[in-house]
Amino acid sequence: MKKNVRIAVSYGEPAGIGPDICLSLSRYDWSCDLVVLGSRTVLEQRAQSLGMKVNLHPDTGEFASGGGALVVQDLVPSANVVPGELNPRNSNHVLEILKQGAVGCMEGDFDALVTAPVHKAVINDAGIPFSGHTEFLAEMCQAPLPVMMLATDDLRVALATTHLALRDVADAINADRLAQTLFVLEKDLQRMFDIHNPKIAVTGLNPHAGESGHLGREEIEVIEPTLSALRDKGMRLIGPVPADTLFIPSNLKDVDAVLAMYHDQGLPVIKALGFGHAVNVTLGLTFIRTSVDHGTALDLAGSGRADPESLVTATRLAHTLASTKHSHATSTA
Amino acid sequence: MKKNVRIAVSYGEPAGIGPDICLSLSRYDWSCDLVVLGSRTVLEQRAQSLGMKVNLHPDTGEFASGGGALVVQDLVPSANVVPGELNPRNSNHVLEILKQGAVGCMEGDFDALVTAPVHKAVINDAGIPFSGHTEFLAEMCQAPLPVMMLATDDLRVALATTHLALRDVADAINADRLAQTLFVLEKDLQRMFDIHNPKIAVTGLNPHAGESGHLGREEIEVIEPTLSALRDKGMRLIGPVPADTLFIPSNLKDVDAVLAMYHDQGLPVIKALGFGHAVNVTLGLTFIRTSVDHGTALDLAGSGRADPESLVTATRLAHTLASTKHSHATSTA
Repeated sequence: MKKNVRIAVSYGEPAGIGPDICLSLSRYDWSCDLVVLGSRTVLEQRAQSLGMKVNLHPDTGEFASGGGALVVQDLVPSANVVPGELNPRNSNHVLEILKQGAVGCMEGDFDALVTAPVHKAVINDAGIPFSGHTEFLAEMCQAPLPVMMLATDDLRVALATTHLALRDVADAINADRLAQTLFVLEKDLQRMFDIHNPKIAVTGLNPHAGESGHLGREEIEVIEPTLSALRDKGMRLIGPVPADTLFIPSNLKDVDAVLAMYHDQGLPVIKALGFGHAVNVTLGLTFIRTSVDHGTALDLAGSGRADPESLVTATRLAHTLASTKHSHATSTA
Repeated sequence: MKKNVRIAVSYGEPAGIGPDICLSLSRYDWSCDLVVLGSRTVLEQRAQSLGMKVNLHPDTGEFASGGGALVVQDLVPSANVVPGELNPRNSNHVLEILKQGAVGCMEGDFDALVTAPVHKAVINDAGIPFSGHTEFLAEMCQAPLPVMMLATDDLRVALATTHLALRDVADAINADRLAQTLFVLEKDLQRMFDIHNPKIAVTGLNPHAGESGHLGREEIEVIEPTLSALRDKGMRLIGPVPADTLFIPSNLKDVDAVLAMYHDQGLPVIKALGFGHAVNVTLGLTFIRTSVDHGTALDLAGSGRADPESLVTATRLAHTLASTKHSHATSTA
């Protein structure tokens, strides 16, 4: 008998809204096994602050999350957690949770990892070099090139570069990186999204995709030759397309994903069209990872005003992606 | 008695779809006077190719555009016009039309100018330095800083920089230019859009608006101090806001306009949300100018497949803006 899909949800920074929104997962019905990674005590205390009745169960296989219950893999923080107050002494706790999630996915105990937000600066304040969830998870599974993608029901936007100052973007676009990014994107659209031969539209770097070199030459020198070489290998690629015309809905009709060259070229559109409910999916890892698209919102922790929508959507997508991968694995077994 | 609003529509490059979409204006009803600037012969020939019956009338005040008729200020090209075939010999014709439109607006004969697309390269091929409609019109009315804005019914996005290679954007953002752009934007939102004390949201230049300097320092060094100084002068400014969160509809509820730092940060969103029907409005001129948001589409000229929607929307907005300005002028007279 096929086992249930099992999804780990890391509650992230315990002083932020992570525990709050994880508790909210208990209110939904789930057709997969959901395990929250975090401190049972913190979750109990937070539920009390919020006036929520949630039955917290250990991860023994006897219980299921949903309908008022939550399965928790209990991990103990070093210091007492006060909502809204960052404490560098708990940074190891935050990273331990991520490690458990990643290792669980790599060893097949979990089928996907969903992450609530962490707070980069407080981890650094603890003297730990940490540049973000994605980089940390990529290092754990030795993935050479993680690719950030945001997905809604209607649109998927991946990025060729991510968290770079704008003035550094143009120099970061090179043929090798662009090709590797497109390989990762194509492979994971196939593997996770079950799209056999995906059609990918690639934006130009410059306005009007450089307007034949009048507004920049990266299209002519880097992007066009790269796309052309990949088309020769059988990839279905459109572009480079001017970003301001590409995202007009009629131009996206049969496009499976867009590769934008940088953060603010691609994300404002998909977040606007998705009303802020786009899910962040990390491609190129050895396992499935989705994430909320918001921060720790320290001021809302324990207030009852944290919106769980993004975490719920990220969890649902993780379930869908894991089911797809599951059925692939089964059919090719 | 208050005279009708009079709007000039330049038909742009005669070998492109400009004449086709201008002819389509005859099919609508207009509560303003509409005068197409272009060659009567070209329009007659194009109507014939398209199998359209349009009554072309001279601009004598006896006739009105709409209901099958079009008022034309006849301007004669140097060479025969063949749809789809650019001819540098007609570049002077294209510029003469723009001059007539601009002078007409400056002298009060017209209340607004709506422009169909021109073809930059063929004008340059004629040995005439020409970098675009906006720059040409700005020079004619000696406007120091024209500002490009796209507008839909729900959203307005102006740009701090426009047609620049991406690698040149960061250095083009400076305090003086940013302040001047915001002055122009505020003034024209008041004057043309009748918004007394507009609330303007300004994006950051870098992803996450620089994330406290971790992803670029232009927010700290240039944008924040500029906004702060302008707030002290009474302007209602939000920002710098990360572009990917700013455009989420709930964040734009009471915002009258967004100032984006560059082309592909602001335009993909508004064109996507406006389904490609955003109107280009040039602010900072001494007169009202709106424009289609597409090119000459040479291959569609005379084919019957040119979509007049953008020109119709641009003309309607010009009418609305001119009426607002009109009523302002009347009420303060």
